[in-house]
Order: sequence, then structure tokens, then C-alpha cells
Amino acid sequence: MSWIVEQSGFDPERITINGNKFMLGNGALGYRGTLEEFTKEQLTACTPAGLYDKVGDQWREPVNAPNGLSTRWFYNGEPLSLLSSGYESHEQSLNIRNATFHRATTFATQSGGKAEIRSTRFVSMSRLDLIVLKVDVRCSEDAELTVETGIDGDVWDINGPHLEVFETVEKDGIVSLSALTHELRQTVSVAEGVVLAGIDGEETAVRTDKGAYRKIVFRCAAGQTYSFTKYISVRYGEDRSATTTAAANSVQEALNTGYESLLAEHEREWEQKWAASDVEIEGDDEAQFALRYSLYQLHIIAPTESEKVSIPARGLSGQVYKGAVFWDTEMFMLPFFLYSQPEVARNLVMYRVHTLDGARRKAAEYGFRGAYYAWESQESGDDACTLFNVTDVFTNRPMRTYFRDKQIHISADAAHGIWEYYRFTGDDSALLEGGAEVILECARFFHSYSYYKVDKGRYELLDVTGPDEYHERVNNNAFTNAMVGRTLETALQTIELLQAKHPAFYEQLIEKLAYAEDLEHLRAMHSELYVPQPDSETLLIEQFDGYFKLEDVELPTLKSRILNKNEYLGGGNGLATTTQILKQADVVLTLHLLKDRYSEDVKKANWQYYEPRTEHGSSLSSCIYALVASDIGSPDWAYKYFMKTATIDLTGDSKQYVGTLYIGGTHPAANGGAWMAAALGFAGIRLQEGTIVVKPALPQGWKSISLPVRILGQSFHLHLTSSEVAIEADASNRSAQVFEIGGQQLAAEPGNRLAIRL
Amino acid sequence: MSWIVEQSGFDPERITINGNKFMLGNGALGYRGTLEEFTKEQLTACTPAGLYDKVGDQWREPVNAPNGLSTRWFYNGEPLSLLSSGYESHEQSLNIRNATFHRATTFATQSGGKAEIRSTRFVSMSRLDLIVLKVDVRCSEDAELTVETGIDGDVWDINGPHLEVFETVEKDGIVSLSALTHELRQTVSVAEGVVLAGIDGEETAVRTDKGAYRKIVFRCAAGQTYSFTKYISVRYGEDRSATTTAAANSVQEALNTGYESLLAEHEREWEQKWAASDVEIEGDDEAQFALRYSLYQLHIIAPTESEKVSIPARGLSGQVYKGAVFWDTEMFMLPFFLYSQPEVARNLVMYRVHTLDGARRKAAEYGFRGAYYAWESQESGDDACTLFNVTDVFTNRPMRTYFRDKQIHISADAAHGIWEYYRFTGDDSALLEGGAEVILECARFFHSYSYYKVDKGRYELLDVTGPDEYHERVNNNAFTNAMVGRTLETALQTIELLQAKHPAFYEQLIEKLAYAEDLEHLRAMHSELYVPQPDSETLLIEQFDGYFKLEDVELPTLKSRILNKNEYLGGGNGLATTTQILKQADVVLTLHLLKDRYSEDVKKANWQYYEPRTEHGSSLSSCIYALVASDIGSPDWAYKYFMKTATIDLTGDSKQYVGTLYIGGTHPAANGGAWMAAALGFAGIRLQEGTIVVKPALPQGWKSISLPVRILGQSFHLHLTSSEVAIEADASNRSAQVFEIGGQQLAAEPGNRLAIRL
Repeated sequence: MSWIVEQSGFDPERITINGNKFMLGNGALGYRGTLEEFTKEQLTACTPAGLYDKVGDQWREPVNAPNGLSTRWFYNGEPLSLLSSGYESHEQSLNIRNATFHRATTFATQSGGKAEIRSTRFVSMSRLDLIVLKVDVRCSEDAELTVETGIDGDVWDINGPHLEVFETVEKDGIVSLSALTHELRQTVSVAEGVVLAGIDGEETAVRTDKGAYRKIVFRCAAGQTYSFTKYISVRYGEDRSATTTAAANSVQEALNTGYESLLAEHEREWEQKWAASDVEIEGDDEAQFALRYSLYQLHIIAPTESEKVSIPARGLSGQVYKGAVFWDTEMFMLPFFLYSQPEVARNLVMYRVHTLDGARRKAAEYGFRGAYYAWESQESGDDACTLFNVTDVFTNRPMRTYFRDKQIHISADAAHGIWEYYRFTGDDSALLEGGAEVILECARFFHSYSYYKVDKGRYELLDVTGPDEYHERVNNNAFTNAMVGRTLETALQTIELLQAKHPAFYEQLIEKLAYAEDLEHLRAMHSELYVPQPDSETLLIEQFDGYFKLEDVELPTLKSRILNKNEYLGGGNGLATTTQILKQADVVLTLHLLKDRYSEDVKKANWQYYEPRTEHGSSLSSCIYALVASDIGSPDWAYKYFMKTATIDLTGDSKQYVGTLYIGGTHPAANGGAWMAAALGFAGIRLQEGTIVVKPALPQGWKSISLPVRILGQSFHLHLTSSEVAIEADASNRSAQVFEIGGQQLAAEPGNRLAIRL
Repeated sequence: MSWIVEQSGFDPERITINGNKFMLGNGALGYRGTLEEFTKEQLTACTPAGLYDKVGDQWREPVNAPNGLSTRWFYNGEPLSLLSSGYESHEQSLNIRNATFHRATTFATQSGGKAEIRSTRFVSMSRLDLIVLKVDVRCSEDAELTVETGIDGDVWDINGPHLEVFETVEKDGIVSLSALTHELRQTVSVAEGVVLAGIDGEETAVRTDKGAYRKIVFRCAAGQTYSFTKYISVRYGEDRSATTTAAANSVQEALNTGYESLLAEHEREWEQKWAASDVEIEGDDEAQFALRYSLYQLHIIAPTESEKVSIPARGLSGQVYKGAVFWDTEMFMLPFFLYSQPEVARNLVMYRVHTLDGARRKAAEYGFRGAYYAWESQESGDDACTLFNVTDVFTNRPMRTYFRDKQIHISADAAHGIWEYYRFTGDDSALLEGGAEVILECARFFHSYSYYKVDKGRYELLDVTGPDEYHERVNNNAFTNAMVGRTLETALQTIELLQAKHPAFYEQLIEKLAYAEDLEHLRAMHSELYVPQPDSETLLIEQFDGYFKLEDVELPTLKSRILNKNEYLGGGNGLATTTQILKQADVVLTLHLLKDRYSEDVKKANWQYYEPRTEHGSSLSSCIYALVASDIGSPDWAYKYFMKTATIDLTGDSKQYVGTLYIGGTHPAANGGAWMAAALGFAGIRLQEGTIVVKPALPQGWKSISLPVRILGQSFHLHLTSSEVAIEADASNRSAQVFEIGGQQLAAEPGNRLAIRL
């Protein structure tokens, strides 16, 4: 089976899509799949996780670091670049197994000579500030070659310029370019060391306003290969000198270690990742590849060493979506890590702990108590979302949207993630280190947000936006109310847990938060919260109050009303707003998340009702339909949605604009959704009160699906066919784990293998 | 002083505006100020009060009756019409004292001859189905004249055709044209009798699909005047034959009575109206005329004999605004009638009693209990407002608006009107005949609509639209909450009154409405309702939750952003929606209605804050700013708003379009507002717990203002200057009435005259 994404030839139209598709990263740095000769015009971007900046009135967004791989070639003075030169062939590929990017281009020069440039690069998974590039060049005829390689500080900015006060330092052959961010004066330093192999030429230092290059002119003998290797360290920090020194030191260490060893340690990390997470599908190569590619995309953006960053909605693929962390992380990505790499999952949920104060500020800003997590969260947890988040294509005016104000379910999602980490690992450290506080503050927020309807004797949640953002400002969104109920429940469970296991900590926490009165509020609200239920006749759950009264138009009819292909379908005057067409799974998402609470008939009725009414205008939608379809025993209904989800970053087929706003980039939620559709959907795995339930429902043609899972600190490998579930319990496991398969409960003892016929 | 509105010459551009400006009416019929030769193209309309029809999916609207005044002239075969002929002179005038319309046109024919046509018409104030037209013609040379006069059933319809199955009957020279309305199959009958004077010619009956004419050809001697008089009866009803017969009989009676007697009885009615209501202003002829004209407009549409109709927002000037009754009636027109003609006021408030079931249906439709009065009310009280009430000028798509769904204050306004009638007259019959039931049902609706905020310990009103319709779906609109509070108070006062004076009736009512539990709800809500209060520092009352956080843009800046002159400034994406610019008085209206509850400083601070932020996009706005300006002792600030209000139907300067919807027509709310600004503002009259308070604040140049008032069944005439208030108590009064003037309390004994120096 191939692990290679590849492409022959060069199509300028695909530069942006390939930037996403061929991306490298290590969770701390993202590097778009562009070529060495590209600049900001081609959306070249080296994006460090967790660094944001704001200029003027424009929105805050990630900072792209100077591009340390920037390299320009000249053949007898004639530039070699796919953007301007003739070429005979061009191949580029990404090996997702070891996360290396390769290019091989044979340029055809005007003088008739040919120059072949091959390069390999990787963003080190063992040294998170390090990027390594190795370049070989060979000419068909003797020629004078010039290479200018260095650091390009003239970076892609949507709302910049973010970098200013550039400074270049050279010491012991290591060149460092540093700059300050506009808003918070953080230093971004990129250091570069170069090792030449076979190249013997004159080296000049070239310094521009925002760039530091070394220019080497050398004679190239026909047929001979000349090489150089670059080691780049990208760092940011408060202190300019310390940051710059650290980057240079890191390059020095890399130089000392050398290319082969660095590659080897990088590959070892990747081997471990795949061992912990790879899903094997027999019988469907296309699905196999797309799913692996999805996991690759998750691995390159997962924070392995920091709990201060989480995964942005567009990963580390640039500045789109403000580099912000959405609910996508908890709902669509976290499950993959919970099942495979709980240490990453812990980082993700701890991010919410570290941004609690931002969430408190947001709640206070809107006049509420507790914690109201940001729809678009950056490093501080303050909401980066603007009130005018879309531009009206008809008037070119900013359009007031309510993403920021009304998506209260974010707090429920954050609380859910924290509790899920505890539930999957049994590790209550995240609760003690702030997670419990987050949960209680979210519950307090919901009480503060809620209203009591006296003549109906119930708490309601009014004026909210659910997952279906085409319907803003609705009352009693089924998903929101259900998830708020879940938060209240979780808060009560947290209290119980702390009282039982950590009574002193509990007392301190309640006192610190002045929470005594809130406890009563929580209990009252928990017992009287209105959560929309299935209708007794139709079994349908109404998405929100009044949804069924909206125009029940068919999706093609709605689409036929579109006057401008980029027009936003939601908002005040959006075409979908007044109809039953939804952007993405909403009720159906509830059926997935709280799957134990709804009967199969209810799931079927709602899937069938909402499916034709869903536009899937969000990449968060398809996987949920796939999951619930599998759950109700219709994996073949699920399959097309699974494939749509799993291939999104391979095909580049996704919404590129909302209004006039570019929203391209990678789709980690869909990547995580692909894993969920496969593992939780087709393989049918779930954790239910300490028991691992497995209920496979494989699509046609799938012979088997195999995957490792790590639950409650123990490891298992599952191999499922339509007729059998085989479980290997790792020999290092501490104790037996109960599985429920086909209605049967079995204990998997450490080191044992069980096979259950269905 | 002139009582004449006049115009010389003919400007086709002003046909529509003149249709409003020269209108006649008697509260049962409106007849637009068009000419006899005009048709539906010129928006000729004879509009009976209370008759509505719906065709297909379009909105319900008033039905225009066939035009019984339709008349065409031919001079030697050449048509005489201002629309197509040459003319030497044209004058038209409206005498507002006796409500007669006159035209005098001298046509210049192609052959060089001249024909002078003079006509007078009136819509009888003594016989409410009757319209009378007298026409004189004189030619400069001998000629053959043809007159075709009859009934034109091809009427102006916005969303018609409303009339079908036309039928013509002639009996004893009286021609009747009847038709059925499309939806409810009501018969509309127009009967016509003609008396010729000096005309001796051949008469032929001409019948077309929708018309019945008599054609008379006669020789006209040079210099000789020939005349005819038409008597038209316009009626509608369930039974075709009965309605038609009644119309014919009415014409027969008119024929028997004769023109001069009919005019005399009509004029007697008008004399009484003016005696009961005329306001005299010394020192400002322009204001005097504009104010009288405003009262004229109110008189011609006031229901004097029916409590089943009220006054539509555009009076009886055609089909605009669906012929619907809005809160305008209670808030802007009712005060004039309360002070001058309480019997008309009673009809207006009883209309809400007769439409209570419609309001109950609307409440139930939205899932609430009690009575939710229609934003646009027709004969049944069901809401004629559509959910898509404006068309987006940029996309030509219907725009979802929330006029219908969210203007809950209408129920408060209806309840307010009923209680005001009782307060001003001491007559509790309207309460006993259904008014109390309305008040209790409105209060019940508000409880059902409200939510309780547990952590703030208060009831709130969420998701409403206040008077400022540019801000839809807001929480805790100051006006709405204050008026809802007033309804709860009124409900409790009603209960007290009934318990004390009509205990058996009270018991029956509570039982009939199953209201026992609601009483508790009402008391709780009344004591815990949140009503936004002045800020302790700034004294400002926030228009709704979050208003002060909206963009604080200046009105000219906002207007500079307009891309299309007809674009709607409210709604989902409206330019005003996200700013502090308001359509019309909102907080300031509260300060007027509940003027005893706010200090002068609060009124000043809020007037000054909101005034520059008000667009006055509604004709309901200016008068309120005038009223509060007078109240805070700044009549000169008030004056421009008073004049804008009082001249609106004279100048025709008002918004003609919202989106693509025509909203022209007359402006009874502004007419009533002009009276309020003069009587309640400049004269400073108010009724406070049985005492008539008078606190004049005359604008510069006004020497005095005099007016009659009728309060608690007794009549007074007030004459006010800046230095003196003189009161004449009618000799027929039963008892002394307490006045409060300049801090002094005085009793006006029947027949006495008091003069108090200020």
C-alpha cells in the first residue's frame, strides 16, 4: 500500500491547494507544501503554533515566520523557477509515513542546457523548532550556477504587516533573522545553517530590508551532483536576545548531529505515531489511503509538548480562520487522540484550562457569570471573532453575524472535552489542575445565560446559535440544550468525584469560586432544563423552537435561488435562514454525541428527515451523518459521507469563500471526522461506563478494519471483519478490560487475544 | 383665517399626492381627491371602512368600491380631460370647514371653443353611505356636448382583482352596480341617481363588463350653464339583494331630500365637529392652518357610528399599509378623540374588544396564552402582516422582518387605550362590554411571553421589537417593558374596580377566563418586572439591552452609506440595525406616555441623547419629540417637529417607499400627533388623577392657543397665553372640575370663567 501523495507536472492553478495538500508540520510548526523558489505570492507560510498578532482594526491572526527555506537558483544568470522558467519535468511528493516532502524538477534553460534540482525536506518531529532541507543539483552541461539561499522575512500576511524591526545577526556561519510582532512585541527568530557538499564557490552575504541570504556562485560540471543542506530553527519568545540565541544554538546542534541522524530520529517519532494510530482497511485502497492521509494531517498539527496551544480549525496551514481554535477540536479531533494518544488529548483539553480567564472575560463582557469560551480562541482565550464576520457580496458591506455572541455550546463542548479525557484515561489530574474549575465555570455560565419559563416550569436557553449556523439567534436549539444538560450533569459528577476523592481540594475550589449558591442553581437547572425530545408520533426532534414552521424547501430549489456563488446562505437575509435547510449536522450531531439516549428508531427518523435538508456547507457535517448512519446499521449510506470527509484535503474540494472571505486551508475537523467515521462508525467502537463496546458495520467491499486503541491506560489492537471481532490486549496492560461484543461481555486479560464471532 | 386648501394649474406629477391632500370622507367612506375623469390609473379610490379581501397568496387589503363619480365629457366628440386635453385654467380646492371639494376647469378645445366644468362634491357626514356631486358646464360657443356619467367598477387594486361577478340593475332611474369580493363573497353595491338641470338630450344606458354609465348627448348654447347632480350610495354587506336594495333606497331618499338640504345637514355635522375640536392659534397663521387641516384629516376617517372599525394607519386613502389598524390609533389618534369626542374614542377602543378573538388566535399561533394583538389588524383582528414585509432592493428578494412576530407592545397599547377611555370619561361600560376581558387577556399574554431571570430575580421581556423597528429582536426594550408594566398595573386596577363596583360580573369573568391562577402570576410579575431605569450618572435610559454598545454613528454619516435610496435601514442587514440610529421615538415616547414617572432632568438628558440619533423614518416620531420638548420647557425645540408633523399631508413630504413597497397615503398618526403637540405639548394639558393640569409653553410668536376639551363628561373651553390661562366651564356641566395651573388648584364651577395669571 502506498503512503505517497504525488503529483507530476506543474499547474499554477493548484499552487494554493497543493500548499495544503503537501503540508509538513510537527504541532509546533506548520510548513505549507510550496516550493523553495516560492514567496508570499504563492502563500508560502511557516506558521508557528500559538503566535498571534493584530494590526489596527483588523482581526488578530497567526504570524507567519520568515521563510528559512527560501532558495533561488540561476543558471548562467538565468533564473530557475517553476513560476517563470521552462521545465522538462516536475514531480513532487509527500511521504506521509515519515513526513518528508520531495521535489524533483528538470529545468530546460533558454540556452538548451538542463538543470535538475531535487530536494527533500522535513519538519522535525523530534526537535520541534527544526526544519531540514537537503538540495541536490545536477546540470546537463558545464555551467555557472548561482544559489541564493537564506531567510525571507517578507511573509504572507492577510491583515499585516505583523513583523517589524528586522534584525540580522551572523555568528559562526549561522545567520539569524529576527523581528518583532506588531502588537505584543514578541520576537520571532529564524536561524539558518548551511552545509555545502561539493560546492566550491564564492559566498557573499546579501542583506535586504527583510531578508538575509547567502549567495554562492560556483562552476558546475556536467553530470555532477552538487548538494547543500539547510538547518532552520524557528522560535518565538518574549526576549529577543534569548530567542535568537536559542535558535542559533539549535541550528548548531543540528549541524553537529547531521542530516542522517536527524532524519532517523524524526522517522522514529513517526513510526511511534503510526504504531499508536494507524488504521488498516482491507478491501478498499482508496479509503485506506484517504484515511491514513487524514491521520497524517492530524499528526502534523497535534501539540505533543505544549498544553498552551490546541489545534486551529485550519491546522497550521496559514492565517485562515484567524488561526483560531474552535469547538472543532473537542468535537471532531479529540476523539482520535483520546483513543490513540491520550497525552496529546490531555494537551488539547488543558488548553481550555489555560484560556479560562479569557472565557471569563467573554462571559463578563456579555453580562454573564462563569466562563463563556470563545468561538474563535487564540492564545489568551479571548474571542478573536469579529461581530461582522462575513462580507455581504451584494453591497460589499460587513454583515453582522452572531458566531461570537450566541454559540454558547462552545462552553459545553470545552467542558465535555475535559470530562471525556477523564472518562477515557481515568486520570483526574487534568480535573485537579484546572479542569474541574473549567467545568464548574461553564455550568455557572449556563445558569447565568438561562431563563426560567414560569408557566412551563422549565429552564430554557434562548437566543443561541447551534452548530447549524445558518439559523442564528434561535431558542432552545436541541443540540445546545442537550449539551448544556450534559455540562450540568458533568459538573455534578465532578463535584461528586472531588468530594469523594479530593475533599480538601473540593472545599478550597468551592470557596475560591464562591460557588456554594451556584450548587443549588445547578441542581435546580439540571432537573428542570428543557431539552427538546422526539415527537411521540413522528419521532422527530425539532432543531429549535419553530424550525418545523420554516419553509420546507428542497436543497436544489434553494440553490437555484442563489444569485452570487459566494453569497452567504445564513445571516440576516440569507437564503437558508428562513428555510429548513441547515448548514451542518445539528440534531444528528446530538444523536451521535449522546447516542445512548436515543432509540434506533429515533436516530433513523431524524437522520432521514435532516439528511436531505443539510447543505453540508461545513466540513464538520459529513462525518456526523456517516457516524449516525453506521450506528443505525446503514454503513453504505455512511460511506459516501466518510469518503467526502476523508478526501477533503486531497481533492481540495471545499468551500473556499464565505462572502468575500477566503476560508481555504486544511480541514483537521474533517480529518478527525474521517477517523471517527471509520473507528467509531464502521468499527463501531465506543466506551460506555468503562466497557469497550464494539459493534462493527463495515461498508460493502471492506474485508476488515484494524486499529490500535489505548483506553484507561491500556493498549489493545482490534481486528474486525463483518463476522468476527478479534482483540489483542497488550502484554504490558495492568488488568483485564471488559469488552461488549454482539451483546456478550468478555474480559481481555493482559497479553491475551480474543476472537468473537458475530 | 382661511379654511381652504387650493391649487391652481395641473401637474400630473402631483396626482397621487393630491389624491391624499384633497381627500373627503366620513369615517365610513373615504374618497380620494381625484377628478371625475380619472380612473384607477390615477389611484382614484372610494374606500369603505372595514371591508377587506385577499386574492391568492398576496396580502389582504381594503377593497375599493366602484367609483360612482366617474364622469367623461366630450365637446363635439373631443374628450375633455385634464389628462389629455388642452386647458386654459384649472383650480381645485378643498374647504375643510364644511368638507367640500371643488374643481373649476376651463378646457381649450382643438376647435378653439372653451368649455368650463365646475363641480362640487361632498361625502355626507349625516348619511354615511352617501356621496353627492354637482356639476356645471358652460361653453363659450354653441356645441354638442356628451356626458357619460356612471359607476366605474374597474377599480385600483394593489393585490386584486378583489371584485368579481358584476351585476347591474336599473330601477326607477336609479342604476346599481354590485359585485362580490373574492375571498368572503361580500356584496359591494354602488347605486347612483342623477338629476339633470337644463340638460335636455338623448340618454342611453351604456353597460360594460365592470361599468354602468348613462350617456347624454345635448346641445349646449354658448354662455349657458347646464348642470346635473349625482347621488351615490356605497354599501357592503352579506346579502346581495338586501345590500343593493338598501343602496338604491338611500339614493332615492337623497333624491327626495335634494342637494341643498343634504349639503345643509352635512354642514351642520361639520359645525358640531369643529365646535367640539377646533384649536385656534393666534399669531401663527401657518401653524393654525396646518393644525386645522390635521384635524380635518382625522374627522374624515373617524368612525362615528361603528365600533367594528377603527382608523387604519393610512386612514381611508386607499389600499396602502393593507388598510390595517396599527398601534398608531391608540398612541397617536385616540388622545384627540378622548379630549374632544369621547363617543368616537369609545368606538376606537371597542374595536379592540371586537377583535379580541383574532388576538387570541395570534397568541395561540405563537404558543402563548392570552391576547396578542395584531401589528396590522383588519376586521377580524387576525394579523394581516406578512413575515416578509419588505423587499430587499439589492436582490429583489422578500426580506424576513419581525414586525408581526415581535411587536408585543401592541397588546399593551390596546389595553392602554381601553383604560384611557375609562380614565377620561369615567364611563366603565366599555370595560364591562369586553374591555376588561381585553385587559386581562393582554396581561395574561405578557406573563406567558415573559421569562424569569433567576439570578437577577426579575421578569424580562426578550426578543421583542419596540417602536424603533430598525432594531428588531432586542431584549428588554425600555418602552415595551414600561408599557407591559402599565398593562399589569391596569389589569390589577381593573380587577379592583370590578371587585368593588361589579362583583358578580367580576366573578363571572374570572371563571369564564379560568383566570384564578393568572391573578397570582400577574401580581408576581408586576412586582418583579424589569423596567430599564435612568442611569444614576448619565440619567440615560438604555433603549434595550446592549443598545449603548452599538456603533454610535452620526445620522449624516449613516445616510452617506446608503447605496439605494429605497433600501430598508432595518432588518437583518440594514444600515441602522447595527448602529444607535433609531427609526422613531422609543425611549422618548416612554417619557411622554409615562411623563409623571420621570424627572425633568431625565427627560432632558434622554431627549438630548436620542434626538440626534433619530432618523424620524416614521411619521410617528416628530410629534413625540415635540411633546417632550414642550414638557421640558423648550417649545422652540418642539416647534420644527410640530410643523413637520402638522404639514405632512399638505406637503406630501414623507417616505413613499420602504424597499419596493409603496407606503404613501395620508398620515392620521401624524395628524393626531399634531394635535397632541399643540394641545398636550404647547398648551400642556393633561389629566392627572381627575385633575386637569394645564402648563402652557407656547412657541415664539404664538400669542394664544384656545381649544375646547371634554373630560369626565363635562365641557370646557381653554384660552391660553404665555401669561394667563382662562377656563370657561360649560353651563351644562354637572359639577365643579379641579384644575391645576401654575402649582395652584382651582375648581371650575359649571358656567363659570376662571382666569389664572402665570
